[in-house]
Amino acid sequence: MKTTAEILRETRASRGALTGEREKKNAALRAIAGRLLSEQATILEANRLDVEAARSRYGEVMLDRLTLTGARIEAMAQGVLDVEALPDLEGRVLSRVERPNGLVIEKVSVPLGVVAIIYESRPNVTSDAAALALKSGNAVVLRGGREAFCSNRAVVQAIRLGLEDAGLPPELVGFVEDTDHASAEELMRAVGLVDLLIPRGGAGLIRRCIENARVPCIQTGTGICHIFVDASADLNMALKVIENAKASRPSVCNAEEVLLVHRDVAAAFLPRLRKCLTQDRVARGLPPVELRLDDKAAAIIPGTPAGKEDFDTEFLDYILAVAVVEDVNAAIRHIARHSTGHSEAILTRDEANAAAFTAQVDAAAVYVNASTRFTDGGEFGLGCEMGISTQKLHARGPMGLEELNSYKYIVRGDGQIR
Amino acid sequence: MKTTAEILRETRASRGALTGEREKKNAALRAIAGRLLSEQATILEANRLDVEAARSRYGEVMLDRLTLTGARIEAMAQGVLDVEALPDLEGRVLSRVERPNGLVIEKVSVPLGVVAIIYESRPNVTSDAAALALKSGNAVVLRGGREAFCSNRAVVQAIRLGLEDAGLPPELVGFVEDTDHASAEELMRAVGLVDLLIPRGGAGLIRRCIENARVPCIQTGTGICHIFVDASADLNMALKVIENAKASRPSVCNAEEVLLVHRDVAAAFLPRLRKCLTQDRVARGLPPVELRLDDKAAAIIPGTPAGKEDFDTEFLDYILAVAVVEDVNAAIRHIARHSTGHSEAILTRDEANAAAFTAQVDAAAVYVNASTRFTDGGEFGLGCEMGISTQKLHARGPMGLEELNSYKYIVRGDGQIR
Repeated sequence: MKTTAEILRETRASRGALTGEREKKNAALRAIAGRLLSEQATILEANRLDVEAARSRYGEVMLDRLTLTGARIEAMAQGVLDVEALPDLEGRVLSRVERPNGLVIEKVSVPLGVVAIIYESRPNVTSDAAALALKSGNAVVLRGGREAFCSNRAVVQAIRLGLEDAGLPPELVGFVEDTDHASAEELMRAVGLVDLLIPRGGAGLIRRCIENARVPCIQTGTGICHIFVDASADLNMALKVIENAKASRPSVCNAEEVLLVHRDVAAAFLPRLRKCLTQDRVARGLPPVELRLDDKAAAIIPGTPAGKEDFDTEFLDYILAVAVVEDVNAAIRHIARHSTGHSEAILTRDEANAAAFTAQVDAAAVYVNASTRFTDGGEFGLGCEMGISTQKLHARGPMGLEELNSYKYIVRGDGQIR
Repeated sequence: MKTTAEILRETRASRGALTGEREKKNAALRAIAGRLLSEQATILEANRLDVEAARSRYGEVMLDRLTLTGARIEAMAQGVLDVEALPDLEGRVLSRVERPNGLVIEKVSVPLGVVAIIYESRPNVTSDAAALALKSGNAVVLRGGREAFCSNRAVVQAIRLGLEDAGLPPELVGFVEDTDHASAEELMRAVGLVDLLIPRGGAGLIRRCIENARVPCIQTGTGICHIFVDASADLNMALKVIENAKASRPSVCNAEEVLLVHRDVAAAFLPRLRKCLTQDRVARGLPPVELRLDDKAAAIIPGTPAGKEDFDTEFLDYILAVAVVEDVNAAIRHIARHSTGHSEAILTRDEANAAAFTAQVDAAAVYVNASTRFTDGGEFGLGCEMGISTQKLHARGPMGLEELNSYKYIVRGDGQIR
């Protein structure tokens, strides 16, 4: 077994192999898609070992995230082909200026170099991340979770066969074989070897990265997403959007966690909301949503009284914290205090309130009259995504090819001095 | 005296005051320029105290950087007016897409929020940084060096009067009154209060930031800049460019520190170089440049033998390390091992070698046939600059208004759910 340090050095040494090799790069992505399909039996067998080992320790949702099938592997291969088809950004001239002294200064898109990603459970992240990194001209170091170790290793083996098919070094996709905390810490401290670290996982991982990373690092994921129902909102639309944002997939970061309702419509809206999220769902055989209510909401409908921490919790479950607020400005203030900067929405027919909300709410994605669930690389038209950034430096929101690039200035002259 | 924590909270609370206030912001910049002039006597008196105190402890170069004059204050005021005249990036739509489901997704430029800068000696950085931050819609926290404390405080007082003249809160420009290490550490750890930290100073400060910062931070400054003289170079141009890059201002980060010479021209070029950088300069009354030579260069001209560390040292002095290399690929490999990613140049008439060099050298600015001294916000046409980034994330090279911005996605729909 290679050490993490050896893998980092090998991957770093390989990164130049993609420079200017647009055709080889695309050929490699096509070969990788082919190898994912031709190595399907090996990958499924490896995945079976992971799932067996996990069965006693994890619940159904987690087991489902971990399990691969023929159809899922086909979807992974298709994902790689979709990335191959995206426009190539390498060498794109972002700006060009000719200075009075005759210097021509071009700002040109370049890959970051080596991108490292620490992730959990889903083995499809392995091929998504490798495809995005390679397409954007980067080498990548993958460090998945222990529970998916055999699956990830098998997927990486298929990817590396694809690289070799196209005449590229397999070291372009490095795979960290240690899955303990120490290997994650090593990536966080690999100054000079890692150009960008993306932690993609639970709050604990993100926090460890913020506290310990000495390499450039993108904060991803945590989403305490709010929806504000304004006095002028279309209340039928509001029911539909809130049910979707809260309950279509509560375990993801773009799911709604907090509902704010304008006091002028609270009495009309909250009883309908409660019916929609509880008895109507039960009647359709769906899990009901538990409502945690502030004092004003509790004066209108029955429900669990909200504790203070309920407005700062990413439930990732069928639970919704509900507060009644005075107006759009009170909603904006509430969000400023409690937001994690992910996705926030206003439902309104009032243009001025929509404008105030989009201007003042400081988040990666701010919605008017739509579900927060759309914050996603695919839904935004970026192909797939490397993660969703909740920070403001470099990348914000879904990270696609563009966010895996840096730039450099190329300056051409004929002997200019200063 | 307010604590650093109080100043951070005040500045953060004030940052919304600029949102959408394009005219007020420009009026404030004009008022600040006016106040710098009208408060000139106060600023000069404060500066006199700093210079007196510094006289026994610092050399001439440092004292010169610290000293303000009427003309320098006028230049600071003009700098603020120049920033005011730059195009306003706030609210610029970077991309817009209408999705098949009817959602309209706009990627819109927004200020980062609160920018903090830790800097040393020159009091003009105070007004430059404040002007760039305000123009880009950000609040700013300034933490200057102890040696310039009185000057910086007086400049900040003038700036705050200007903000008040325009009806904006003076807290938009926060000034940290502690100048000890603890206050710098506090900025590095102010998660949630500082959106971007720019350390602008010596190598020790930069290293402390990389090791300790938990807020997003830009690595700036260190420049071990190389010039490679290819076999096909115009040798007269090479002499002129190298003298400029090395000796026009050796204390700055874009000065050349290392010269690489193609072995085919070394015998012809090095004797001319030595004459140009030593006796010709002495004859013109200028300080000569000490040459530190690798074995191959030392076999051609006399000079100090280079130690191994000379090729990894930012001399910031009239010293140049010289090595003879086999070809452009050897030059690129040398630079990959020793570069700090700042500015690198090739002097050549060979298009293929120029293309290989610009493609493969991984630095903020890569030059063909020009001096490295041009890596500078003003010279690049950005107005002034907040610092020169040598990292690849978010900003690379001179940081102007654009680099003080983030973006957010504004998504408009009519009830879309996923």
